[in-house]
This record gives sequence, structure tokens and C-alpha cells, in this order.
Amino acid sequence: MDVPIILIVALIAGIISIAMAFYFRYLVLKEDPGNEKMQEVAGYIEEGAKTYIKIQYKILGIFVLGLFLIILFVLPSQINSGSFNWEQAIAYLIGAIGSMVAGWLGMYVGVKANTRAAQGCTISTKKGFDIAFFGGSVMGLAVVGVALIGVSVLYWIFKEPTVILGFSFGASTIALFMKCGGGIFTKTADVGADLVGKAEYDLPEDDPRNPATIADNVGDMVGDIAGMGSDLFDSYVASILASMMLAAAFSIGTVVFPFGSITLSEAGRNILVILPIVLCGVGLMASLIGIYLIKLRGSNEPGKALNTGTYLATLIYFGLSALLTFLLTLSEPSLTSEEVDLLWRIWGTSAIGLIAGIIVGFTSDYFTRDDKKPVQNIANAAKEGHAVVILSGFSYGLLSVVPAAIGIIFAMIVAFWLAGVFGVAMAAVGMLSIVGTIVSNDAYGPIVDNARGIAEQGDLGDEVIRTADRLDSAGNTAKAITKGFAIAAANLTVFALLFSFTQEAGVFTIDLLNINVLVGAFIGVIIPALFSALLILAVQKNAAKMVDEIRRQFEENPKILTGEEPADFSRTIDIATKGSLKELILPSIISITIPIAVGIIFGVAALGAFLAGAILSGFVFAVMMSNSGGAWDNAKKWIEDGNLGGKGTDVHKASITGDTVGDPFKDTAGPSINTLLVVMSLTASIFMGLMLLPIFNLGAGLLVL
Amino acid sequence: MDVPIILIVALIAGIISIAMAFYFRYLVLKEDPGNEKMQEVAGYIEEGAKTYIKIQYKILGIFVLGLFLIILFVLPSQINSGSFNWEQAIAYLIGAIGSMVAGWLGMYVGVKANTRAAQGCTISTKKGFDIAFFGGSVMGLAVVGVALIGVSVLYWIFKEPTVILGFSFGASTIALFMKCGGGIFTKTADVGADLVGKAEYDLPEDDPRNPATIADNVGDMVGDIAGMGSDLFDSYVASILASMMLAAAFSIGTVVFPFGSITLSEAGRNILVILPIVLCGVGLMASLIGIYLIKLRGSNEPGKALNTGTYLATLIYFGLSALLTFLLTLSEPSLTSEEVDLLWRIWGTSAIGLIAGIIVGFTSDYFTRDDKKPVQNIANAAKEGHAVVILSGFSYGLLSVVPAAIGIIFAMIVAFWLAGVFGVAMAAVGMLSIVGTIVSNDAYGPIVDNARGIAEQGDLGDEVIRTADRLDSAGNTAKAITKGFAIAAANLTVFALLFSFTQEAGVFTIDLLNINVLVGAFIGVIIPALFSALLILAVQKNAAKMVDEIRRQFEENPKILTGEEPADFSRTIDIATKGSLKELILPSIISITIPIAVGIIFGVAALGAFLAGAILSGFVFAVMMSNSGGAWDNAKKWIEDGNLGGKGTDVHKASITGDTVGDPFKDTAGPSINTLLVVMSLTASIFMGLMLLPIFNLGAGLLVL
Repeated sequence: MDVPIILIVALIAGIISIAMAFYFRYLVLKEDPGNEKMQEVAGYIEEGAKTYIKIQYKILGIFVLGLFLIILFVLPSQINSGSFNWEQAIAYLIGAIGSMVAGWLGMYVGVKANTRAAQGCTISTKKGFDIAFFGGSVMGLAVVGVALIGVSVLYWIFKEPTVILGFSFGASTIALFMKCGGGIFTKTADVGADLVGKAEYDLPEDDPRNPATIADNVGDMVGDIAGMGSDLFDSYVASILASMMLAAAFSIGTVVFPFGSITLSEAGRNILVILPIVLCGVGLMASLIGIYLIKLRGSNEPGKALNTGTYLATLIYFGLSALLTFLLTLSEPSLTSEEVDLLWRIWGTSAIGLIAGIIVGFTSDYFTRDDKKPVQNIANAAKEGHAVVILSGFSYGLLSVVPAAIGIIFAMIVAFWLAGVFGVAMAAVGMLSIVGTIVSNDAYGPIVDNARGIAEQGDLGDEVIRTADRLDSAGNTAKAITKGFAIAAANLTVFALLFSFTQEAGVFTIDLLNINVLVGAFIGVIIPALFSALLILAVQKNAAKMVDEIRRQFEENPKILTGEEPADFSRTIDIATKGSLKELILPSIISITIPIAVGIIFGVAALGAFLAGAILSGFVFAVMMSNSGGAWDNAKKWIEDGNLGGKGTDVHKASITGDTVGDPFKDTAGPSINTLLVVMSLTASIFMGLMLLPIFNLGAGLLVL
Repeated sequence: MDVPIILIVALIAGIISIAMAFYFRYLVLKEDPGNEKMQEVAGYIEEGAKTYIKIQYKILGIFVLGLFLIILFVLPSQINSGSFNWEQAIAYLIGAIGSMVAGWLGMYVGVKANTRAAQGCTISTKKGFDIAFFGGSVMGLAVVGVALIGVSVLYWIFKEPTVILGFSFGASTIALFMKCGGGIFTKTADVGADLVGKAEYDLPEDDPRNPATIADNVGDMVGDIAGMGSDLFDSYVASILASMMLAAAFSIGTVVFPFGSITLSEAGRNILVILPIVLCGVGLMASLIGIYLIKLRGSNEPGKALNTGTYLATLIYFGLSALLTFLLTLSEPSLTSEEVDLLWRIWGTSAIGLIAGIIVGFTSDYFTRDDKKPVQNIANAAKEGHAVVILSGFSYGLLSVVPAAIGIIFAMIVAFWLAGVFGVAMAAVGMLSIVGTIVSNDAYGPIVDNARGIAEQGDLGDEVIRTADRLDSAGNTAKAITKGFAIAAANLTVFALLFSFTQEAGVFTIDLLNINVLVGAFIGVIIPALFSALLILAVQKNAAKMVDEIRRQFEENPKILTGEEPADFSRTIDIATKGSLKELILPSIISITIPIAVGIIFGVAALGAFLAGAILSGFVFAVMMSNSGGAWDNAKKWIEDGNLGGKGTDVHKASITGDTVGDPFKDTAGPSINTLLVVMSLTASIFMGLMLLPIFNLGAGLLVL
């Protein structure tokens, strides 16, 4: 298969992205890190984050090595039948290392940017915003750059999408550990700090006397920057890969689409295969322009600037990708008019995907904004006590699933109508094309959250803390939209992976009236419930340990509470680190072994149904948990702003209960489901060769009914 | 089609059942209703329950009439094509009226048995137990009797299972109103009473000064007796019907089963068609013996007696149904050995179904018993405050889905292996065969719950209240198992309905790789989430009104709190009545219109996927909500028994929050999902004729992709 030259668009975009990431890193590092106290606090955070990442990367190293060997020796080669599967295994290794490097880079700048952003707030809001935003952009640009370069180069060398499957699986296994582990870490610290500090000792948020404050800040870095970055890295690569595999499966000659059949030339097919990468390159350029525009406007209203940046990147993507499609049709005169028509249809699918992402983002925004009905009703429910605020937030979270689902279903139907299942996959690519902007906006949040804490602990005064607060609240506004976006993107991506999996496995129907398939779907539907339960219990268990440790420190050394002596931060960080790494083992094993077991026992069609069931129920759980968590959080903040009696009242206390329940919902279980779904889908594809072995009835499963 | 004479077994069993119900009613009514105060309180409860039922039946009358006319005039006749569909319409009317009569009968005795059981407790535990258990058995026997007589007679007259579809749909529409309405009513009162009475004024449970106490008792009657009875009536009839339809669809001659193909004679097929009814007749006899044995043993340990009764009824069913199968093969010498083998296989499916029901019941029992790990961990989580107890209970609820699902999956696989999809339907029939025992045990609960309240309000002294408490706690033990049973039974039943629906609709594959089908499944998966959200919000909204009313009464008339003047019970009952009837309209409309809309827009195959998606996600939600609700309830009770500091501590307060969140989970949303699923499945079957009209592309849907 010949590789068209336009692939170079993506490669160049990737290189620019990495270059910009390093330039932004330079811009951040050259800023003033603030006074001694601030540097000390930031030093604790940096050290904690690095310790955590080092331990995690060590465990990951063993895990990755194990999977590398399995892929190399157990699975058949994708290129030369009979030889070892070294291409996919190496791609796996590169994907894993790439994700780890991107995460490390993003986090390394994050822990430098926090104190500098705090110091920037002493100069101006704009200064603080710029530093935090540049810091966040490093993560966004690193993710996109590493992904695009990895995918382009691997495709250039091997010319075979299934090899890149290894790259994607590598990214996914890292994401699973980073997201679940980071999620458990951050909420162990956060919930623990709140339960004792706020509820028992009445300490304010980020109070330096609270022994879990630093752990909380470290959690923001490892969970919200590195974890979230690896999560979107994962979806991004997987969506590109699923589309490439579906395109590569098109036969040259007559191809049937829902709108009719067309005749596909080899040149046309080759363009379709690399189109996902190229469109992502275009999306990256749109993101870069968006980032530039955000910086330009960020001076006045940081919150609006972040969202406007997302919308602008969307519009720029529409324009640039249309221009690219037009140039492509010009530069390849051999394309028939049918093929040109198809390219425009695909442009449409990517646009509709991006629009659906925005719709789902808007839904999350509506259900979690304090000036809309849901949050206000939840806040009012707090007047009736702890239980009623929980019932209310849980119900609104469930309700929010409906409009989000309508957005996804709408995109699926239109994309399918435009270009079949390949269209659905390209809708996922379109949605993720501006992931650079999304990750940048999201990584901005934990940096300013940290900055606020450092300003508090560095005694920068009320004025500066208020400025930092303003930046922080802008981060929260952006977060709702990016979270909805991430769920929608993961959802469409896993649908695309499901289609490419079934195509590769030679499964042409997944018939729910077949008992094995129905059982597969049944098992799939319960997995997100089990997975969420394990993660929430992990947070609960670790937070209880954290509570005991904080109480112990206060009791054994009363000078901590008076502020005369510093708390022992290393102990709390240690509890969060060890607890989170221990608790992610079982969920990780489940996400890899259950799909393989279902495929082997019930067959590959049942595995398809398993994935479909998990995707659908996972969507319900992810949206519900993220949105009810966000809504509880903002209901509490709205009350803290002085509504319904404000701080210290019983209403406020009830709202804190809602917020605490929402913490592991929105920051541990909810977002981890995205990664779970991608990992399970990729596991199905990677280990398909195993399931098709004759001893497993060539994919029909051991239990043939 | 000739009707075999053995149908008479079912008819006789049904008549015996009704006769026994009236005999038990007589036994209850002849008992001493207690002192004047008790009779007054019981009078309030009776009046409140009757008022509620009257208003509800009026609304139901209009609704039933409307659906009767639609079935009669809009849908095509199932027997004489071209004529009006009067057979199904009349069956619908009979089903609706039958369910209403059974509900009325059960509730009428319930409101008489409560005060008599309280009075019985002054004599002995045994006396109190007997009265309450006879009272509950009236509901159980009425349900089974009316169902069996209705189904047998309709089949005798029309010899066509699809006509009985009307009967089942009638029972279902009533169940939807009774279950949702009753569920909202009972929790509006319960939550409202707890929030103000317990939390603000420190009044004990069932305190007569609390204006919502009577409404709470009325709620037990309308929600837990009439609502739950109609729910199981609904599943019972639907499981019989689905099996009959699947059997009637067997062609005479070669029929293919998973174990091989057999040659079916007309006599053999006719036996298969009525076998579900006959086995249910046998199950009823097993239940009657079980009820007799419970009465015999109830004297010593009421809690154990109830569960032992369930197990004994199960064993007796195994024996009796084997005997019947044996006699059947003797009495029909024309049956071939293949057909005899099939009958034994079907006996096996009904046995495995019943075993699965027990497994799921055990699961619920394990996750909600205070001497097991989950409840104790949840209680311990209350030490960390309101939020942590919620997180813990929610997680255990999610975890409990896994073993319950394994039970169902196990039954499905074995039943399918024994006799195909007909086997799965017969597993549902087997599970529901002893529904008489299940409903009796369940209806016992609200009666003793009421009795405890009446003993408190009738000043019967601590000794009697303790006796009533013991009976009450026996009811709670039995409740966990019957709830698990009800969910498992509804789940298998709706699978059976799904199979019979697709067979009738001529849908032979439900292919998830078809985009319309996938969208159907997507919509199906979100419906239980939406439905739960609406019901929980309804409870929350109404409970807030109830809270306002209670506060108003206490503020306007301080003599209520001192006990000098009675509270105004009619106002609180009125709020619960009006609120619940208003709030059930939207969920009811959704459950009937959405399946029809999906069928018309996306086609009948998509509707099949819609049902499958709703069944699977509904199972997760129903199990999670029921079990986390039950676990919170018992964690609270365990603390109230003096553990972890006992009543009045912060731990206790946190556990009350768990219990209050659990109330609408376990008694409103969770159990209503069963009914939702049955109604949606039957709606699909009933309105299939409409979807197959040419303007809707003969069932392929308007949106052909």
C-alpha cells in the first residue's frame, strides 16, 4: 500500500505541537516562582507528585513488559504469518512509553506552573491566567504531538493499521493505570482532608495546617493533569486507529454505503486510510490558533475565554478541514466524482461529530451551572437535609443522561447516513480533532486550583487569593464542558472500535436472539457497575485511612493545629500513593481478563455484544456520575457564595455531604469508565487472534449453544 | 386447537385459592379489633387507603377505558381478520378489573388485619403472627387465584394465547399505576415523617403526634400490599402468557431445539401450550401446603418460618411438578419418547428457574442482613459521616448486581440448553410458580408494620410493642428474599416476552451491528435511568410538601406536640394522594409511548433491541436500588440496636441519612422498574400490528438506514 504524501501534514503538525509545548514550558519556567514559603509548598507538591509517578511508572514498567512479551510471543504476527508479532509488540511499547512521556511532561510543567501562576496573580489576573494556561497547554500539546507523530511514523514504516493497534493498546493500558490510580489518589486526599479538616476542625479549604492539603494538591496534578491527559491521549489514538482499520478494510472496487454503492480506486482507499490522521493534524492547527486566541482574550474574562476558545477551535476546524478536503480533491485528479463526493461526506461526519461533542458538553454545562435550575434545585433540596440533597443530585444526574444520549444518537444516525460505520468512526475523529484545546483547558484547572492553595499557604493576602479564586472558578466552568466532551468522545470511539473489531473478527451480525450473545450483553452491562463500585469503595477505604492519619497527627502534636509546627505531609502522601496503587489492581485485571474470557467462552459475537452492553451502560454511569458530582460541587459553592444562608448553616453542611459523595463520582469512577471502555475494546481486538484458535471453536466460543 | 382436560388442574387450583382467600379473610375478621383508640387509628388508615384507592381507581377507569377503545378499534383482531379486536379488548378489560379486584381484596383485609394483629400480640406472638400471616395470604391467594382462573377461562373460550395478551396487558397497566403511585405515596409519607418528626422534633417512629404517621401506615397498605401484589400478578400472568405464545408458535412436525430437532405431534404441542398454566396450578398447591406449614411453625421463630415456608414450597413444587409430568406422560399414550423427553426437560427448566430465584433472593439477603459484612461495613462507614455511608451503601448495591446477574445468567444458559427460548420462558414460569407464597410473605410485612404502629398509638405497653417489633423484623427478613425473587422473576419474564414478541413480529435476528438496532438498544438502556430519576424526584418533591405541612401543623397548633389535640391526618394523606397520582402520569406515558415510537421510527427489530437494553439496564438499577436501600435500612437498625454507640449519636444520624436515601430507592424506583419492563414488553406485543402497517415500512420503521 502506497503512503500518500499528505500524511506529512500530520507529521509536521505533530512536530510543531511538541515544539510549542517546549516553548510554553520555557515561558512558564522563566517566570518568578514566588517567595520562599511558596517555593517550599510547591516543592512538597512536586516531590509528592514525582514520588507517586515514579512508583507508578515502576509498577507500570513490569506490567507493560509482561504485556509486551505476551503480545510478542503469544499473539500471531499481523504482517508475516508464522513469525513473532514483534511489529505490534514494539508499537505497544512505543504507545505505552509515549503516553508515559506525555504525562510526565505535562505534570512536570504543572508542578512548576502552579507556584508561578500564584505569583503571577500578585501582578495581574492576566499574568496569572497566562502562566496557568501555558502550563496546561503543555499537557494538551504534548498529548496531541506524541500521538500524531507516533501514529504517522508507525504507519509510514509498517503501512498496516493493525500494527498501530499495539500503539493504541499501549496508550490505553497506561491510561487505565493513570486515570484509575490518579482518580483514587486525588479523592482519597480530597475526601480525607474535607472529612476531618472541614467537618471536624472547621479548617478552611487549602489550610496549611491540614496534613492532607499537600496530598490534595498532588492529587490534582496526578489525577487531573496526568490522568486526564492520558485518558484523552487514549481516546484520541483509538479513534484514529478504528477509522484507519475500517478504511483499510474497504475492498478496492465496489463498496456499499447506506446511501448507495460506489467504486473505490486504490488511491481513493489510501486517502481514506490516512484521512483520520490528516484531519487530526488539521484539528491540531485549529487548536493552536484557538490557544493563541484564548491567550489574547483571557485578560478580561478567563472563564468565557476558555469556552470561547473551544468554540473558535471548532469553527476553525470546520474551515480548515473543508479547505483540506478541497485541496485534496484538486491535488488528486485521479479521484472519481463519486470519491470526491465521499470525501465531502466524510468531512460532514467529522463536523457532525464535533457538533455532538459540543452538545454533550453543553448538557453537562447546563446540569452543573449554578445559574440553572438543576443546581439551584439541588441547593434548595439541601434545606431538607443530607438525604434529600443526595436524592436530588442523583436524580438530576440520571436525567442528564437523556439529552447527552440524544446528542450521541443524533451524531451516530447522521454520520451513518453519510458514510456508514466508517462515518461513525470519523465522527469520533472529528470530535477528538480539537483535543489539544480540550486537554489544555482541562489541565489549566488543576494548576490554578494548586495556585490558589499556594497563594493561601504562601500568605499572599486576600486580594491575591481572590484573583486566584477567579481563575479557579474559570477552570471549573471549562471543566464541565471538557468532561462532557471526553465522555462523548470516548463513547463514539468505542463504538468505532466495536465496528472495526467485528469487521476484523469476521462477525457480521451480533444477534441478541442468540443466547450466547445475549449473555455477553448481560455481562457487558454489569461491568461498569462493578468497576464503579470497586473504585468508589477504594476511595472510601483509603479516605478512612487518611482520616485516621489526620486525626492521629492532630492528637499527637497539638502544635500542628496552632500552626507552630508543620504537619507531616509525607505520611498522608504515602497513604494516598500506596492505597491508590493497591486498589487499582483488581479493576485493571477485570478490564483485561473479562473480555478475553467472554470471547473464549461465549465466542467473538458474544464479545461484540459484551462491548456494546458495556458501552451503553458505561455511558449511563459515566454521564450520571460526572454530572451529579459536578452539580453537587456547584450547589455547595453557590451556597458558599452566600445563598440560602451561606457558610456554616445546616444547609451548607448538607451541601458538603453532596459534594463529598460527588467527589469520587465525578473524579474517580465517572471518568475512569471512559478508559475502561477503550481498554476493553482494544483488548478484544488485540487478543482476537487467540479467540479464533481452533480449540476455541474458531471464535464461536467454548460454550456453543 | 383442542384443549386438553388437564387445564382443569389449574382452574380447580385457582378456585381453591379464591376460596381459601375468603376463608382466611373470615379468620381475620372474626378476631378482636382491639381497644377504641386502636380501632380509631385503624379506622383512619382504612379510610385513607380507601380514599386513595377510590381516587386512583377512578383515574384508572378512564385510562383503562381509553386503552380498551384503542385496542378494540385501532388494533386488528387476533382471531377474525377484518373484524374489530373485541376478544383482546375484552381480555384487556378482564385483566385490568381482575388486578383491581385482587388488589382491593388484599388491601381490604390488610387494613382489617393490622389492628387485629396488634391485639393478637397482647395474647401471644403466635396469635399476632397468625392473624398477620392470614391477612397477607389473602393478597397472595387472591393474586394467584384471579390470574389462574382468568387465564384458564380465556384460553378455554378463545383457544388463542394472543387474546390472553390483552389480559396480561390489562394486569400490567394496573400494576404500573399501583406500583408507581403506591411507591410514591408510601415514601412521600415515610420520608416526610422522618425528616421533620425524627430529625427536627426527635419523635420516635410511629408517634401519634406526627401528622404523617397515619399517611405512612396508609402508604404501607397501598404501596407494599396492593402495589406489590399487582406487580407480581403482572409478572405471573406475563410469564405464563409468554410461554404459551412460544409454545403455540411451534410448528407441528420438526421443531429445532439446541439439543437437536424433534418431531412434535398436535397433542404434544397442545400440552406444551397449556403446560405453563398447569405448572402454575401445581405451584399454587405447593404454595398452599407451604402456607399451612408456615402457620404450623410460625409460633417459634416467625422470621425463619417465613423463609422456611418459601424453601418448602420450592421443594414441594419440585415433587408435585415431577409427579404431574409423570402422570401426564402416562395419561397421554400418544406422546412419542422424544416428546416425553421434552416434557422432562421442561420440568427441568421450571426447576432451574425456581432455583435461580432462590439464588437471587439469597444474594439480596446476604447484602442486606445485619450479621453480614456489607451491612456492617456500611454501618461502620457511618462513623465517617453522612457522605461516606452513602458512598458505601451505593457501592455495595452496585456490587450486589454481580452475583444476582450470575444467578440469572446461569438459569438462562441451562434453561436454553434444555429447551431453547421456550425453556427460558418456562424457567420464568417455574420461578413464579410459588408466587402465592412470595406475595403472602411480602404482604405480611406491611400488616405487622402497621400493627406495630397501632400498638404504639393504642398504648398497648412496651411488652406488646416488643412482640410486634419481633414480628416486624421477621417481615423485614422475608422482604429481602421476596424482593430479590420479584426482580429475578420479572427479569426472566421480560426476556420470555422479548422472545415471544420477536417470534410474533417475524424478527429472527436483532443485529446490534445494524445502526437502527443499536440506536434502539441505546434508547432502551437509558429508559430505566430516566424512569428512576422521575420517580425519585417525585418522592423528593412531594416529601418537601409533606415537610412543610407537618411544620405548619406543629407551628399553628402547639397542642399537637404535647399530645393534647390530634394532628390533622387527612391533610397529610391528601398531599400524598394527590402528589403521587399527579407524578405517576409522566412515567406511565413514557412506558407506553416510547416503545411504540421506537417501533414506528426504527422498526420492530430495533424495538426488540430497545427491550433488551431496557431489561439489562433495568436489572442493574433494580437490584442496585433495592439492595442498597435494604442495606442502609438495616445498617440503621443495627446501630439502633445499640451498636457503634446506638441511637442519638452522630453515627446514628448518618445512618438515618442512608436510610432516607434508600427509601425511594428500594420502595419506589427499584421495584417499579419490574413493572416498567413488563409494561413496555407487552406494549410492544400489543401494538405490533400497528408497527407492521405498510406506512411504517411493514415493521422496518420510518427511518430505514
